Amino acid sequence: MTGHLPSFELDIRITYADTDQMGVVYYSNYLVFFEQGRTELMRHLGVRYKDLEETEKVGLPVTEANCRYRAPARYDDLICVRTKIKRIGGVHMEFEYEVVNKETGQTLVEGFTRHVFVNEKWKPTPVPKSLLAKLHTD
Amino acid sequence: MTGHLPSFELDIRITYADTDQMGVVYYSNYLVFFEQGRTELMRHLGVRYKDLEETEKVGLPVTEANCRYRAPARYDDLICVRTKIKRIGGVHMEFEYEVVNKETGQTLVEGFTRHVFVNEKWKPTPVPKSLLAKLHTD
Amino acid sequence: MTGHLPSFELDIRITYADTDQMGVVYYSNYLVFFEQGRTELMRHLGVRYKDLEETEKVGLPVTEANCRYRAPARYDDLICVRTKIKRIGGVHMEFEYEVVNKETGQTLVEGFTRHVFVNEKWKPTPVPKSLLAKLHTD
Amino acid sequence: MTGHLPSFELDIRITYADTDQMGVVYYSNYLVFFEQGRTELMRHLGVRYKDLEETEKVGLPVTEANCRYRAPARYDDLICVRTKIKRIGGVHMEFEYEVVNKETGQTLVEGFTRHVFVNEKWKPTPVPKSLLAKLHTD
Repeated sequence: MTGHLPSFELDIRITYADTDQMGVVYYSNYLVFFEQGRTELMRHLGVRYKDLEETEKVGLPVTEANCRYRAPARYDDLICVRTKIKRIGGVHMEFEYEVVNKETGQTLVEGFTRHVFVNEKWKPTPVPKSLLAKLHTD
Repeated sequence: MTGHLPSFELDIRITYADTDQMGVVYYSNYLVFFEQGRTELMRHLGVRYKDLEETEKVGLPVTEANCRYRAPARYDDLICVRTKIKRIGGVHMEFEYEVVNKETGQTLVEGFTRHVFVNEKWKPTPVPKSLLAKLHTD
Repeated sequence: MTGHLPSFELDIRITYADTDQMGVVYYSNYLVFFEQGRTELMRHLGVRYKDLEETEKVGLPVTEANCRYRAPARYDDLICVRTKIKRIGGVHMEFEYEVVNKETGQTLVEGFTRHVFVNEKWKPTPVPKSLLAKLHTD
Repeated sequence: MTGHLPSFELDIRITYADTDQMGVVYYSNYLVFFEQGRTELMRHLGVRYKDLEETEKVGLPVTEANCRYRAPARYDDLICVRTKIKRIGGVHMEFEYEVVNKETGQTLVEGFTRHVFVNEKWKPTPVPKSLLAKLHTD
């Protein structure tokens, strides 16, 4: 599937814990924001990631992550993480992210994560039908 | 047991990731250093914490943690975490920590953590004999 | 001041990043939740912590932190951090926290943090009047 | 410069804090390991990153980061971060990383980070001569 795929916007307030001594958000923390973005996108679609794990016995580990840093976020900034499903099918899923400063609209970070669906033995397994169904009714 | 109990010194280099925009180590990170301290103290005694979990089926969750912050650690500082077993017996274990600046000797943080031994159902369970044996031969 | 002091409730969704291999929130992360709690309590009072730093040139480093862990929070739980100002006066400020599971109401963690107001040279300095004013109009 | 460029191997012990509830290292933590890798590579060359900032007034923010996850690292694993300078010149620097399980030799993660040298106003600035000198004597 690569047609019109769902997206979601999640606001996050930058904490002291997120910053480093350069006064900006430490670079690994955007991957945590990406996780929050894709989880809330899926919840918005009616799929709780936790249920995929507990009910469907399916996990979605990351196989690749990429971040391009355009401008820094700073302490107490309100940022918006725009998450899109870029591609889903077979045993794979890919998300795209754009992080913007909520006040100025400036793009701060762009990135993507690629994932593989796995069963309880960490073997690749097809996209759960429950998830595909949610995408089709969209 | 409250007699002469073992201690261990672990050196840790402060990373950028550890700092915040005040230019000092963010306060929650000392609890991570404490974890590293007690794990290496136990390894030094001949007990791998991982084996307690996997072989003895015993966990050691934290019931209380305390930190008193005396002076800040900064980026690239080499610190030393001095970990002591303060008390062990029944279903409980307590560690004490002193974090010092390795170069100046200054005390940066003092703290403790209290733990309870639990079985696979998270029910309190006695100190594993394998661990007590290591303490006695000390 | 120790009379009726303000409090605030902040909801936080537990992420994968917060958990550890025991399947529960790693113990140091509650100190991050405490930071979020006190920041939002102050914002609710009309004081942006960032402005204290940038406008008033005052910082509020932690001198002591304490957590008692009653029950674990798990992935995707919605928790509520109840933050209270326990004491403010002289050069000091103290917050109390109770973290509860939003769905069950169960208390998960209780704790406190003690802070000292410092000027740009990290010397103790009185509570900013702008902050005291907000408390009095409450 | 793209000839034979220096590399460095840094051993890191996986902590509980690094893991998530899947029982493996949470994906953003490899970016922290990368930071530790490049810092120690530079120290090995005789350049303290801290001195670049404090003495040369030069920073090295990340413009892009990439991780490909091949296999998971688990609690208490000893991993080795192999860091190479891939490219340095103009205002840019690029590092390559391979994370391997120290015991089995298995490749766990491969990645890179791209950086730009900036002055105190965060404007791009040439590679510091002190750093180039260390590379040439190599």
